[in-house]
Amino acid sequence: MLTQKPSKADILQVSEIIRPHIHRTAVLTSETFNKLFQSELFFKCDNFQKAGAFKSRGAVNAVFSLSDVEAENGVATHSSGNHAQALARAASIRGIAAFIVMPSNSPQVKVDAVKQYGGVITFCKPTLKDREETLNKVIARTNATEIHPYDNFNVIAGQATAAKELLEEIPGLDLILCPVGGGGLLSGTALSAAYFSDKTEVIACEPSGADDAMRSFKAGKIIPSVNPVTIADGLLTSLGERNFPIIQQYVKEIVTVSEASIVDAMRLIFERMKIVVEPSAAVPFAALMEQKVNVKNKRVGIILSGGNIDLKNLPF
Amino acid sequence: MLTQKPSKADILQVSEIIRPHIHRTAVLTSETFNKLFQSELFFKCDNFQKAGAFKSRGAVNAVFSLSDVEAENGVATHSSGNHAQALARAASIRGIAAFIVMPSNSPQVKVDAVKQYGGVITFCKPTLKDREETLNKVIARTNATEIHPYDNFNVIAGQATAAKELLEEIPGLDLILCPVGGGGLLSGTALSAAYFSDKTEVIACEPSGADDAMRSFKAGKIIPSVNPVTIADGLLTSLGERNFPIIQQYVKEIVTVSEASIVDAMRLIFERMKIVVEPSAAVPFAALMEQKVNVKNKRVGIILSGGNIDLKNLPF
Repeated sequence: MLTQKPSKADILQVSEIIRPHIHRTAVLTSETFNKLFQSELFFKCDNFQKAGAFKSRGAVNAVFSLSDVEAENGVATHSSGNHAQALARAASIRGIAAFIVMPSNSPQVKVDAVKQYGGVITFCKPTLKDREETLNKVIARTNATEIHPYDNFNVIAGQATAAKELLEEIPGLDLILCPVGGGGLLSGTALSAAYFSDKTEVIACEPSGADDAMRSFKAGKIIPSVNPVTIADGLLTSLGERNFPIIQQYVKEIVTVSEASIVDAMRLIFERMKIVVEPSAAVPFAALMEQKVNVKNKRVGIILSGGNIDLKNLPF
Repeated sequence: MLTQKPSKADILQVSEIIRPHIHRTAVLTSETFNKLFQSELFFKCDNFQKAGAFKSRGAVNAVFSLSDVEAENGVATHSSGNHAQALARAASIRGIAAFIVMPSNSPQVKVDAVKQYGGVITFCKPTLKDREETLNKVIARTNATEIHPYDNFNVIAGQATAAKELLEEIPGLDLILCPVGGGGLLSGTALSAAYFSDKTEVIACEPSGADDAMRSFKAGKIIPSVNPVTIADGLLTSLGERNFPIIQQYVKEIVTVSEASIVDAMRLIFERMKIVVEPSAAVPFAALMEQKVNVKNKRVGIILSGGNIDLKNLPF
């Protein structure tokens, strides 16, 4: 288990550890978008990732980094989202139990996905307090190892592999855009940009209805996310303690976007690129549409973080 | 201009002609689907093709096969679908006019797409008779060259490049599944399977509500499509005279699927593969779901023909 900020060597090693169990996802381009933004855009499609999101990278690494003794009792987390599915899947590959605490109001489609991967679900009230208390009880009973969705160096190192792959395939990017929620993907992306490129800047993109990361970045200390309201349901959480210093050191800027832009961005990606993305994944593209980032004549990587969405309730 | 069935050398040459103007589209796989069907499935993603469908291949070839003198007066067709956009785009690349006759009830999104590529639209009544008469008038006035959407050897040779690329990337497929409407994609696919593989069989898949190709195949003569009813709006037309003999010679079988299966197949492809396909493109996968084709332990290519769909009116 990593106990400090992943080094370049750590991320290289993690790439090898997770390689058999994740997709090296495609990088897609769109001439239409390149013309529209007068830039060269490269979309790293982690919506095609196993279990439908980048979360599989960190979850697989966290699960496979456990010693046999640690692994014996399984892993546990509370999550209503992609981390739950990813962790259940990773545990099932290693043949260990995954105890997932889910709020009682979780969408049925997410509950089914966790079950499909063999996750053992405990429902709780939909408050952070009840989620944490229920998780503590589950861990006390099972002795499972908690795998936090982002505030965990092994998870960060796993998420870092998306940007590493992108930079291997498209060297010399000027910029990588990445959504930010708890900061797992962002801190990993920022480390990979620093380690595997000598010129790539990282800009994080966040819904203005959940702008705690932007405010934390400006204030120089973690400001918790209080009553965030956004369709980008993967980006509701507060920054993690392990993530924030990495973000402070390696991220250039955090920009925010409106809800309307997120929906427009999603629709455009569906229509033009013919791929399915969830709202959180559309946030960086929304930042382009709002001209919050200057990409003119630049080569820009965009991490499409996931594609898990209820197709019966598309917002456009 | 090709005046007979494209040869292997023709298709190789056409690949080079169209290469600068089309995508070599990705081939995607899904472990979930492989397990479900106990087979290895390879999805050739022409939903990612320029203008959103395989039609760009044939249209580009047809337009670039014209002599300068022929090209001078532009090209013309009647189409309410993907061929219209593809032809308008191909003509704009060569810098010539595209005269597109469209029925007055064409969806606004299709009209806009043709306009976006600079197509000159003439509206007509939504009957085949009026479409043909209007097209004849347009041609009489402009001297443009008609590019039929499928009953054209240059178009067939262009569409053949999808299966050629697929077989280059995944050699030794046992089977390729392909939707059939007018037979442009199917005849091209069948030729490429015959020319570029020594073992690949081609099976065509058709909506049961538009089963004229299956009936024609069985009867040994073209039986026109009369009042077809299917959500797969790319597959409504009758087989072409140039397409049918190729299909008779090189296609193994034509199977049909229900409307419900087409919708289910679309939804599954969206949900699991995170890609956008139009109903016509989901027809071969529907045939798998209905077990109309035995794919067990086989390596199977599936051509996803297009991804142009009104996202506000998804059928699921």
